[in-house]
Amino acid sequence: MSCSPYLVGLVGQGVRPSLTPALHMAEGRANGLDYVYRTIDLNHLGLAAGQIGEILRWARALGFNALNVTHPCKRLVIPHLDTIVDDAAELGAVNTVVFESDRTVGYNTDAPGFSTGFVEGLPGAAIANVILLGAGGAGAAVGHALLALGAEHLTVVDLDVDRAVALAGELAERHRGAHVDASAYDKLSVLLPHSDGVVHCTPTGMADHPGMPFDAALLHPALWVADIVYRPLNTALLTVARNVGCRTLDGGYMAVHQATTAFELITGITPDAERMSRHFRHLAG
Amino acid sequence: MSCSPYLVGLVGQGVRPSLTPALHMAEGRANGLDYVYRTIDLNHLGLAAGQIGEILRWARALGFNALNVTHPCKRLVIPHLDTIVDDAAELGAVNTVVFESDRTVGYNTDAPGFSTGFVEGLPGAAIANVILLGAGGAGAAVGHALLALGAEHLTVVDLDVDRAVALAGELAERHRGAHVDASAYDKLSVLLPHSDGVVHCTPTGMADHPGMPFDAALLHPALWVADIVYRPLNTALLTVARNVGCRTLDGGYMAVHQATTAFELITGITPDAERMSRHFRHLAG
Repeated sequence: MSCSPYLVGLVGQGVRPSLTPALHMAEGRANGLDYVYRTIDLNHLGLAAGQIGEILRWARALGFNALNVTHPCKRLVIPHLDTIVDDAAELGAVNTVVFESDRTVGYNTDAPGFSTGFVEGLPGAAIANVILLGAGGAGAAVGHALLALGAEHLTVVDLDVDRAVALAGELAERHRGAHVDASAYDKLSVLLPHSDGVVHCTPTGMADHPGMPFDAALLHPALWVADIVYRPLNTALLTVARNVGCRTLDGGYMAVHQATTAFELITGITPDAERMSRHFRHLAG
Repeated sequence: MSCSPYLVGLVGQGVRPSLTPALHMAEGRANGLDYVYRTIDLNHLGLAAGQIGEILRWARALGFNALNVTHPCKRLVIPHLDTIVDDAAELGAVNTVVFESDRTVGYNTDAPGFSTGFVEGLPGAAIANVILLGAGGAGAAVGHALLALGAEHLTVVDLDVDRAVALAGELAERHRGAHVDASAYDKLSVLLPHSDGVVHCTPTGMADHPGMPFDAALLHPALWVADIVYRPLNTALLTVARNVGCRTLDGGYMAVHQATTAFELITGITPDAERMSRHFRHLAG
């Protein structure tokens, strides 16, 4: 028993089938750690998202080292933290809570997770003109990551135009050197032909939301296409894009790297990202 | 990741220094299990013993497989269980709670823990006439175990004579073939010369309650002496008894075997009791 054992949980709605527990535990074990990672599924437990503060208090009392937090608690968790770090504060969303001995600290590993995955999976991809499809929490993290990577012109598109405008405003304020604007869905036909790439950040393409997020005819070989959906890894969008000849990035990259980042925050140990990625693709495949 | 990981806790007052977590985790690891065992110390957390129901509900929700329960919650936990098994129901005390998929089940491993340890550590010891010193929860479990092992005459002694009488009554009702009575502390001088053995079940001799539970002059070489105190393993009582020439049984036997029994209830795996015992004595020594 050379290392202290770790206890971590994932809180959210519908998290029971998540691959994250297996991913963390296998990496913990590979590092010689006793590592137990539990799902805390609000739907299954009949808990309300508004009980996130109570969940945090009890998880700390019962000996958890950390929690990953997902929909619909990423914003709700914030008032219950002692400290919120950098990106998380800017995004107004926390997906990783670490119980330090004297305080509860919130992080967001979605933006670094996307960045690391993007650089790894689409090396050298042009990001002068990028379309961000979906202005929810994931879209916010990805938009932040793209601008931090140096995107010059980012256009936020959402079926809810007000939401697109709001996110574009927030991103513009945080990244003064870039041009960020919002646009309506029906403008994609004008925008996509002149874009370097598009990142899809809506649920379309997930197992229970099958289909294409936009007309496949708008794809062209010079466009790279990134999807953050990872169940399945091969979404309709990516399959069509590959057939057209686009470079593509599946949602596994972000999923793996938000987990590698969280693992390191929790344990202080840099995980073997390649091993975690192989394991993830084995589990997801 | 061939085996499902286990998450277990120990609830009680002052449990932070307990050796039980290390004991379970090492045995889990030796069996190839990811096994995390946490202390849930009511004093440290500022929780009341009356919150045991809330603690149970949250532990179940957050993914615990089981809880060990100790002072002062062994009785308080009972109304919060779906099923109480055998010994635990008879004793009115639960020290192990297993969260099965559809119900919460209470067990008591103190009596089998004492029995197994007694047979192992004092093989062949006569139990025709035995003195039970201390009529609290531990005394009840030990009394039950002694009578189940075949003790013919058991005398319960406690500074609180009413408590001794009450326990003697309960034990007599459950073990009709045996003779169980109660006596006062000042009768030990009459009782001990004619007894086969004495089991000490009060806190006297623990690190923060040092001293002898009764006059050392009452010890004689034909008497075996069992102590359930295990911190320290060598109590004043056992040290003196050994010098007199008594056979002795230290509290480590019961401590280890209540843990081996609990480990088996929780995991379904029969642990290596010898390995757990070696580990316990290494930790306690």
